[in-house]
Amino acid sequence: MTRVIERLSSLFVRTLREDPAEAEVASHKLLVRAGYIRRQAPGVFAWLPLGLKVRRRVEQIIREEMTRAGAQEMLFPALLPADFYAATGRLDDYGDGMFRLDDRKGAPMVLAPTHEEAFTLTVKDLYSSYKDLPLTIYQIQDKYRDEARPRAGVLRGREFTMKDAYSFDWNDEGLDASYQAQRDAYERIFKRLGLDYVIVAADSGAMGGSKSEEFLHPTEVGEDTFVHTADGSYAANVEAYTATPAPARDFAADGPVEVFPTPGARTIAAICEQAGCTPDQTLKNVVLALVDHEGKREVVIVALEGDREVDLKRLEVAFQPREVETATEDDLKKHPQLVPGFIGPWRDGAQFLGKESTTGIPYYLDARIGDGSTWITGANEPDAHVRSLVFGRDFVADGRVEAAEVRAGDPAPNGAGPIIAERGTEIGHVFQLGRKYAEALGLQVLDPNGKRVTVTMGSYGIGVTRNLALVAEQNHDDRGLIWPEEVAPFDVLVVATGKGEEPFAVAERLAAEADAQGLEVLLDDRPKVSPGVKFGDAELIGVPWIIIAGKNSAEGLVELWNRRSNERTEVSVDDAMATLTQLRRKHI
Amino acid sequence: MTRVIERLSSLFVRTLREDPAEAEVASHKLLVRAGYIRRQAPGVFAWLPLGLKVRRRVEQIIREEMTRAGAQEMLFPALLPADFYAATGRLDDYGDGMFRLDDRKGAPMVLAPTHEEAFTLTVKDLYSSYKDLPLTIYQIQDKYRDEARPRAGVLRGREFTMKDAYSFDWNDEGLDASYQAQRDAYERIFKRLGLDYVIVAADSGAMGGSKSEEFLHPTEVGEDTFVHTADGSYAANVEAYTATPAPARDFAADGPVEVFPTPGARTIAAICEQAGCTPDQTLKNVVLALVDHEGKREVVIVALEGDREVDLKRLEVAFQPREVETATEDDLKKHPQLVPGFIGPWRDGAQFLGKESTTGIPYYLDARIGDGSTWITGANEPDAHVRSLVFGRDFVADGRVEAAEVRAGDPAPNGAGPIIAERGTEIGHVFQLGRKYAEALGLQVLDPNGKRVTVTMGSYGIGVTRNLALVAEQNHDDRGLIWPEEVAPFDVLVVATGKGEEPFAVAERLAAEADAQGLEVLLDDRPKVSPGVKFGDAELIGVPWIIIAGKNSAEGLVELWNRRSNERTEVSVDDAMATLTQLRRKHI
Repeated sequence: MTRVIERLSSLFVRTLREDPAEAEVASHKLLVRAGYIRRQAPGVFAWLPLGLKVRRRVEQIIREEMTRAGAQEMLFPALLPADFYAATGRLDDYGDGMFRLDDRKGAPMVLAPTHEEAFTLTVKDLYSSYKDLPLTIYQIQDKYRDEARPRAGVLRGREFTMKDAYSFDWNDEGLDASYQAQRDAYERIFKRLGLDYVIVAADSGAMGGSKSEEFLHPTEVGEDTFVHTADGSYAANVEAYTATPAPARDFAADGPVEVFPTPGARTIAAICEQAGCTPDQTLKNVVLALVDHEGKREVVIVALEGDREVDLKRLEVAFQPREVETATEDDLKKHPQLVPGFIGPWRDGAQFLGKESTTGIPYYLDARIGDGSTWITGANEPDAHVRSLVFGRDFVADGRVEAAEVRAGDPAPNGAGPIIAERGTEIGHVFQLGRKYAEALGLQVLDPNGKRVTVTMGSYGIGVTRNLALVAEQNHDDRGLIWPEEVAPFDVLVVATGKGEEPFAVAERLAAEADAQGLEVLLDDRPKVSPGVKFGDAELIGVPWIIIAGKNSAEGLVELWNRRSNERTEVSVDDAMATLTQLRRKHI
Repeated sequence: MTRVIERLSSLFVRTLREDPAEAEVASHKLLVRAGYIRRQAPGVFAWLPLGLKVRRRVEQIIREEMTRAGAQEMLFPALLPADFYAATGRLDDYGDGMFRLDDRKGAPMVLAPTHEEAFTLTVKDLYSSYKDLPLTIYQIQDKYRDEARPRAGVLRGREFTMKDAYSFDWNDEGLDASYQAQRDAYERIFKRLGLDYVIVAADSGAMGGSKSEEFLHPTEVGEDTFVHTADGSYAANVEAYTATPAPARDFAADGPVEVFPTPGARTIAAICEQAGCTPDQTLKNVVLALVDHEGKREVVIVALEGDREVDLKRLEVAFQPREVETATEDDLKKHPQLVPGFIGPWRDGAQFLGKESTTGIPYYLDARIGDGSTWITGANEPDAHVRSLVFGRDFVADGRVEAAEVRAGDPAPNGAGPIIAERGTEIGHVFQLGRKYAEALGLQVLDPNGKRVTVTMGSYGIGVTRNLALVAEQNHDDRGLIWPEEVAPFDVLVVATGKGEEPFAVAERLAAEADAQGLEVLLDDRPKVSPGVKFGDAELIGVPWIIIAGKNSAEGLVELWNRRSNERTEVSVDDAMATLTQLRRKHI
């Protein structure tokens, strides 16, 4: 490889003093200010030379661990025929999130958000026997998702780079092993990136499939909430958390349902005031609309304890691929039998909503509601509620759903006690897809008995550009970036500063020595730039080691500066490289 | 780097016996059959592990030579706002060739066919002084062009990978130097790829700009024609060839124009028969339509010698960005004054077409037509022609254009004698764009006198995937691919074949030895595959060196097989690697 010593006097970079207007998180601000990335459109970025160097190092770590896990690299096109996704139903599932276009002949194409279909079809094309399996193949490739709210720079872009791997096995044991190999590789990757992570049970989302786990990086700027127990025995994305129903209650001795007047009591608070109860004794009936990809709306009612709010994201898991919205005025107008503020499952001694319903509106209960539980709730007529309404005696439901918000202190489903809630961002995701894609696309092989069996698959993704942003997020201070050694754009920055030619001559010499040792070197050889500006840029850019050839260069002395610890050590020019080598060993 | 020895028993590849149905050229057939690429849609391909390895090696050569030329790598998005291209007029110029889409908010986006605008805007964003220049930046990136007839596999795809570089200078001398540095780098790249090339003067096409040269690979499957002189002093793409007008002729002694009957003579041959002339004495008037990106048509007439055909691609250079089509019945109906078969520039002693025209139809003359030349041509009435019609005396034109086909034997414009014509494919293109893009996008810097000057630019492209296909095209035989050492997916293929465990044990040992020496090794360890199949696959895949551990393995003997020369050398297992090293040195 042709090596050159990069020079700040010619490197295409311009550090900026001002934060970009649209930037909210530190990594976004610093990656732009330090000259790593540059915005081209909302959620679409160019990678300047510094940024590309860090990307390449992140990709290299991922490649090495994929190779170690036995995965083979290949590369699919970003532009694919839409019919690949029609066959698995994902063309609809992705909705507006997928970039779509027609080619000059009118053939519908998409920019791939992920590549399950293409990988599956290609394996089907080439392989036909269990002897060909197991197979894990991957690519590092640009992906496209038309996010409604692209934000936080490359942390959540509309064009982003992913490593996506896919495993193919002919039996379940094989899938378990392939899954575990990728899961282990992910742990190694995040450790090498120096990124904190937790592994949580996850919802499979639009991917389908049976088992899935997310690698979350705990961070305040995260979009996900995850819950876990103090003993570490349970961790899940909040969307995958399953509530424990209240224990079944014996209602044999309960009195009958009683209707009572509650004039104007349209809120839980007002009802409790009039009825003398606490909010958790009331059953709140929320009118929602399920919206499919064509915009068709179905009105449903979800009931939950009065002291909890509906968590729409958790509900969407239950109703996917449909989206869940709160009902509009229009939705309500179509169902005049509903009396807002006084809705309940029971009316005049009969089932009003739920399985025996004549309203035609499906009625779902939150998973926390126990059998035989008794409630205060709406009487389905203005200014009236009921009490002693027993679930299983007076009303039933069309199903149970995970509807209520999850709270710290709720019980973990594995019985390991109360849960703790934290914010995080997804940095990796491993799925056991099972046979969904292989079935939809007809991928079968002959098993050892000569019988055709459907292949079982896994899908494994890591966001390259997102992980890079999170490394920056986790490694910075108020003066700039502080790259971990393994992903830094350069190993060492040599700064020439001060009057006369001596500092520049010494810096050139040390840069050449470092380069000869195989280090990636950036040389700040800019003439007529003040020491303050040079040091400021050094801190902003965040190369882990800085050698300062300054005013003592003439006496044969330079400083070694550790960007992270801020320690500075004065050493002789002759000893500089040997000392740096020792210090780097200590830190790695 | 984690190194592993790749094994054919697990490598994701399946060699095919049949050529793909749609394949026309050898490289396309062989890259598919040998398991390098796999078609996903017309002109859109996936890269299997073998193919990706070759790609990476081609990219590496390009990167090294870019670094040597002082260019810095960065990476722009493929998805860009359409308005980048609106500012330079290219949104129209590219027409149907550009993939276009709207995002979820209705913002018009494109898949970038090339990136002049984005690079220019980013330099404008960050740089402001001549001190920042010269700058040459490049990327290796997927590009998109919606070709009407994608063909020949990855030789001309709709998604393809390019290295595109852009230079920025504040004065013309700087641009000349930047251009020369890239041109030199291109020569080094093609030499390392082992690709034959010629450098020809080129038309700048939709890029605009002043000077441009193409690197063409001479090949029968090429889409371009280029012409050159035997002494090598002149070479040009046929679209950039400029015809030499016939010498001016003194027409003082010429008789007057004479109309004569030519009943039914609608072809040059028929006229010549009736008039007793040769085709080159006739002036052929061809009715054409210029079509803009909105489909608006303008009818024009182009006149040329009767023995030449119009070359529409050459004409399109003159009329770009409009496309040139032969006139339709509808076009002709709008101009009933034109009498098909008898059209001429002159009528009843007055100007009928050309500058004094009353028809409103622009009239252009081919560049070969000389001043004072005299012609037999249509009389603009049925069944009549004129003779002794003198250009400059009896008719004029609205302009000269390069309209006629170029023929071997035509004079080179530099006076170096007759030209030779050959077929070729563009493998690289260097442009001096000049100030067109910088002006359109407002890229200025302060010069040494503190004056704002518009930056002058160059643009330099190499098709990575196309070059790879051409390397395959130039290096194959009827049994398969024969990769040059520097781009081969592996340095050596070790084949274990024959009965018993000995050949496999020997092959494992030699593969490990080769790997330890830093060679990229592929091991054919497939059990129960016949020697014939293994050797056939070896020849198809085309790794330059093959070690065969066969039936003589038990006696400690293996064969070294050179794929290109087909020489086989028997050596002892102990000497195998040392001998291979010697042979490789000799061949490199």
